[in-house]
Amino acid sequence: MSILDVKSYVAGQWIPPNSSARDIENPVTGQVMAQAGNDTIKTEDMLSYARTKGAPALQAISFHDRARLLKSLAIALNNCKEDLYNISFLTGATLSDHRYDIDGGIGTLFVFASKGRRELPNDVVYLDGPIEHLSKTGKFLGQHVCTSLQGVALQINAFNFPVWGMLEKLAPAFLAGMPVIVKPATATSYVTELAVKIMLETGFLPDGSLQLISGGLGDTISQLTCQDVVSFTGSADTASELKASPHLHYESIRFIAEQDSLNATILGPDITANHNEFSNLTSEVIRELTTKAGQKCTAIRRILVPDEQVDEVISALCSKLKNIIVGHPKNKSTRMGSLVSNVQKQAVIKGTKVIGKEAECIFGDIDAFDVIDADSKLGAFVPPMLYYCDCPDTAEAIHVIEVFGPVATIMGYRDLDHAIDLANRGGGSLVASIFTRSSDVARQIVLGSGAYHGRLYFSDYRSAEEATGHGSPLPHMLHGGPGRAGGGEELGGIRGVMRYMQRTAIQGGPDVISAIGNKWVPGAAENTYNEHPFKRYFDFLKIGETIRTQSRTVTIKDIEKFAHFTGDTFYAHMDDEAARRNPFFPCRVAHGYLLLSFAAGLFVEPNEGPVLANTGLDHLRFTQPIVAGDQIKVRLTVMQKTPRNTEYGEVRWHVTVTNQKNETVAEYELLTMNSFSSKS
Amino acid sequence: MSILDVKSYVAGQWIPPNSSARDIENPVTGQVMAQAGNDTIKTEDMLSYARTKGAPALQAISFHDRARLLKSLAIALNNCKEDLYNISFLTGATLSDHRYDIDGGIGTLFVFASKGRRELPNDVVYLDGPIEHLSKTGKFLGQHVCTSLQGVALQINAFNFPVWGMLEKLAPAFLAGMPVIVKPATATSYVTELAVKIMLETGFLPDGSLQLISGGLGDTISQLTCQDVVSFTGSADTASELKASPHLHYESIRFIAEQDSLNATILGPDITANHNEFSNLTSEVIRELTTKAGQKCTAIRRILVPDEQVDEVISALCSKLKNIIVGHPKNKSTRMGSLVSNVQKQAVIKGTKVIGKEAECIFGDIDAFDVIDADSKLGAFVPPMLYYCDCPDTAEAIHVIEVFGPVATIMGYRDLDHAIDLANRGGGSLVASIFTRSSDVARQIVLGSGAYHGRLYFSDYRSAEEATGHGSPLPHMLHGGPGRAGGGEELGGIRGVMRYMQRTAIQGGPDVISAIGNKWVPGAAENTYNEHPFKRYFDFLKIGETIRTQSRTVTIKDIEKFAHFTGDTFYAHMDDEAARRNPFFPCRVAHGYLLLSFAAGLFVEPNEGPVLANTGLDHLRFTQPIVAGDQIKVRLTVMQKTPRNTEYGEVRWHVTVTNQKNETVAEYELLTMNSFSSKS
Repeated sequence: MSILDVKSYVAGQWIPPNSSARDIENPVTGQVMAQAGNDTIKTEDMLSYARTKGAPALQAISFHDRARLLKSLAIALNNCKEDLYNISFLTGATLSDHRYDIDGGIGTLFVFASKGRRELPNDVVYLDGPIEHLSKTGKFLGQHVCTSLQGVALQINAFNFPVWGMLEKLAPAFLAGMPVIVKPATATSYVTELAVKIMLETGFLPDGSLQLISGGLGDTISQLTCQDVVSFTGSADTASELKASPHLHYESIRFIAEQDSLNATILGPDITANHNEFSNLTSEVIRELTTKAGQKCTAIRRILVPDEQVDEVISALCSKLKNIIVGHPKNKSTRMGSLVSNVQKQAVIKGTKVIGKEAECIFGDIDAFDVIDADSKLGAFVPPMLYYCDCPDTAEAIHVIEVFGPVATIMGYRDLDHAIDLANRGGGSLVASIFTRSSDVARQIVLGSGAYHGRLYFSDYRSAEEATGHGSPLPHMLHGGPGRAGGGEELGGIRGVMRYMQRTAIQGGPDVISAIGNKWVPGAAENTYNEHPFKRYFDFLKIGETIRTQSRTVTIKDIEKFAHFTGDTFYAHMDDEAARRNPFFPCRVAHGYLLLSFAAGLFVEPNEGPVLANTGLDHLRFTQPIVAGDQIKVRLTVMQKTPRNTEYGEVRWHVTVTNQKNETVAEYELLTMNSFSSKS
Repeated sequence: MSILDVKSYVAGQWIPPNSSARDIENPVTGQVMAQAGNDTIKTEDMLSYARTKGAPALQAISFHDRARLLKSLAIALNNCKEDLYNISFLTGATLSDHRYDIDGGIGTLFVFASKGRRELPNDVVYLDGPIEHLSKTGKFLGQHVCTSLQGVALQINAFNFPVWGMLEKLAPAFLAGMPVIVKPATATSYVTELAVKIMLETGFLPDGSLQLISGGLGDTISQLTCQDVVSFTGSADTASELKASPHLHYESIRFIAEQDSLNATILGPDITANHNEFSNLTSEVIRELTTKAGQKCTAIRRILVPDEQVDEVISALCSKLKNIIVGHPKNKSTRMGSLVSNVQKQAVIKGTKVIGKEAECIFGDIDAFDVIDADSKLGAFVPPMLYYCDCPDTAEAIHVIEVFGPVATIMGYRDLDHAIDLANRGGGSLVASIFTRSSDVARQIVLGSGAYHGRLYFSDYRSAEEATGHGSPLPHMLHGGPGRAGGGEELGGIRGVMRYMQRTAIQGGPDVISAIGNKWVPGAAENTYNEHPFKRYFDFLKIGETIRTQSRTVTIKDIEKFAHFTGDTFYAHMDDEAARRNPFFPCRVAHGYLLLSFAAGLFVEPNEGPVLANTGLDHLRFTQPIVAGDQIKVRLTVMQKTPRNTEYGEVRWHVTVTNQKNETVAEYELLTMNSFSSKS
């Protein structure tokens, strides 16, 4: 068999391995099958190429354009999925494992592409939170913004998810406008290499936005600045070593660490063997134990069940484990493939010996198990192994030593507080799952254990059908956890993007704040044109474009007519005496909805034109009552514009309704969909 | 003169200094005046006391109660302001300096007290962001929450703001439910000691919520866990040293660093000597140079002006500097007091020598300056000193060496890009200020320099009157900056609170999510009672309480009547043919506000009762058009309850309007103010 050469992609060139390369083993056969690494690669050149080429190119296009870029990458990878599956079998993983890695990675790109268009502006500046009022009359305001870091996102990835591990970091970094350098774990770097190739071949990626180092990282860390970000996934030990670099502290370089942790699952105190949640928990444990042969940072390592349920859970798990077939990943009967390497197998054997001192092995014998279509001695195979610990309070290793393979420990708990204590003994985890029907149990676990977990996954019979699984990080939700889990946060939707941007507090007047965020702020200049803004196409409308309407007097007849027409005869509108008893009103007042409706009557341009529909309204506050005889008038200003497709875009209007004393009566943001002048 | 004994407050006991104590110098006279430190204090006992007493007590009360606690502390400190001023003169600072420290600190408590009540729920769980839809039919959802870390907030503070420095960290930590251990800088620890005493004497603080270590910190860092937070303010060197502790990395302990940085101010390229912004910049420079004798982490160290303005700026600054009187802080003529110590004075002298190699001293002679009411040789006095650097591109020290005293360097720039480059040469700063009228300049600086700054402060003639100053961190806005400034973030309103809480991604069904956040989520159980919810007092209403109304048919007559009544004759409601050309509508449709108004008519209970007013509406989206003949009905559910005072509270209702096919037509959140059953 010929040896695969795993290349690096450096400053626009593919660089093959050289004599310094490391061998990579086929974990099914134990034979060398590939090599990676080239010690002539200068990572300072990669950093400089990324900073001078990739960063400016990505930062020149808007969040929406970056989101479209992610979508095209996702489509390209999706079209080459079979190639990625095929090469992934070499890692010892099964087809179902590949789906987590490859389909999971592509799905992550799609979600970020969609969130980028829906939740970010069509701009390069992100507005973080609302305006802060820092002065009495509003001439001096605060606004937090996020802008792209002007450096490189350096990924240091783990071997278990060569595609997802890259894409879950790449998607938020690209969306943030940061170029990426990927350093995959050498053991599975050939899978990452293929995914990088597919993405580069689209031709959509600006030069310098994506580079790959297969093999060693050299002294890259010491060349980073405060504008760079390191995103690390791997073991706690490696993370601690990297994080100790004085250069990181001196330059305050962001280091996002996501580490393996001692994740728990908890069978709620309310659940017994005849509840659906009982079998859902046991199925989930089996799935977590066998997927990727347990080589998952989110896998269940500790199974916490009420003392009185221990025997039943053990027997249910063992009867399911008997059916797990271990073998060649390409054999369709195989439920669990091999570990990634024989080195990893030795680490698992060593780890189980430590666990074995505190817990009894109740399933799986490393020295005697069946493997189909492969040699169990040459390949990196291990059986699923279940341990039982009868003294979880005094035990140490079961809460601390992560055996990165198909290994978990079951233990009993006395009551919910005890379960929470045991879950927290992990010292910080990526995820804990809880199988319960009780909302009280759920809230107690959040209060007692939330501070120790990056994710808490609640499953019951109602949600089980649509639930996404204990071990699956989703692009929408945070991935990462405190303490032992590394203290980092990844994903979590747009939160994940912000880890690659700098948040800055902006202080200034309303015109400055408006210009910086491309979003009009009350107090900023109002521009008026000859035409009613409803007559102007989306592309012509300017931020700050305003009309101020005529006044309309609200009469007692209006109030009564509105009440009887709509059916809203609330006492504050109808009964003067009752209204006077109310702490908010001087007497009978007009309906809030009457004001909104009359306001629309004042500002609407009725004829067919660019405005297609009123799609919604935000942040409406009624600040002053209107009584019969009062006059209202309206100011309507273009606040923000967001293209939605090639035909139309959303216009956010800022509206104030004022009375004859110029006091604000109501304030809100109105949404309309407006067409472009020409469909492109 | 007797020597002040600066005590520590340890597990409920005041502990005086012992023989291990360090001497503290009076910087005006150079004499020893106080001592602090006791090496028999076991910080592990303090940590344990805080964790077992303080944390549970603070976490047992809601955000609103913690906010009220902050307010009472602020009031108590405010009542003792004169005592705090008096003791603060011992630090060499003037009355105007004390106002930054003491009034600034008290103001920070008040702002957090107010934000805690307005922006946080009356609960212990904070909901971070909206629901994430993770499944097709909504049976499985995501919600990020934040819960209190179960450890201690350890403050390590700088000498320059002994009160504000403590309170700006204490306010968000207490609001988050974390007990605090304060370690003030020894040089000014007696001021902090008094402020701590005042707060403890209120009797409002739960045992273990506030402790004080005056003197050395010992090996406290190595006793921390992932549930603790270190908040550090001080020099970059000390921060780097502390951050290097392997224990911090192994346990992933949060370390928030706020470091001195080389902050810049920029005179915009659009400003010349006859603009107001010109003199505003020079006044700001003088203020930053002299306040606290320049011992401010946010002080202006680098003054960037267009090349052609350099001479004018220098002459304006020098003529103002001539009037600065240096002297005894109690003398009312004194504009600038002493540095904090003679050690600090030596550091300033050393620093100016380094700067002096790259820049010419154009004002201030350390060997010849006047001091009133004190001996310039014995006291830690220095004059304000201004340097000019004519080669800022090749210079290094002026961008790197912070002289922590009344020292700044002026330099010219060629164009805006050059100014941005020079500002960024600081390698990360807390703040830069820009004096410009141009919104384009402002946006360009945000894009070019935002990634290097924690705060950007824009000043022009319109905002100057109400502006808060280059050097003043505000509780509303982030304080901290990237790189050289430490990479930490403090304050920023509720953002600052979250640094003391753990964010956790929650996944589960709607009932579980509702119970965890005390906020009803669509899809969760709807409870119905015999009574209309508008008849039930605030305290009786239950989350999830629901009414579903009868249907009402919308007729063409209704649409026309509404149009003519309100004046809203938009074509989509009036002109069938035009409406059919619209991509959103099948034919003439009802007004959105008609639907809202009819919906209110359907659900309102008209008689006088607990509902006082409709105060607003959020997140309204029209999702489906209603045409003549369609029927609408409403579901109204109690979503969230927030007490506002002792008489009434805000009820947030979730509303959906559906058509005869049960499709959602409109969805929104309605706000009402509802009275309590009895006024307490």
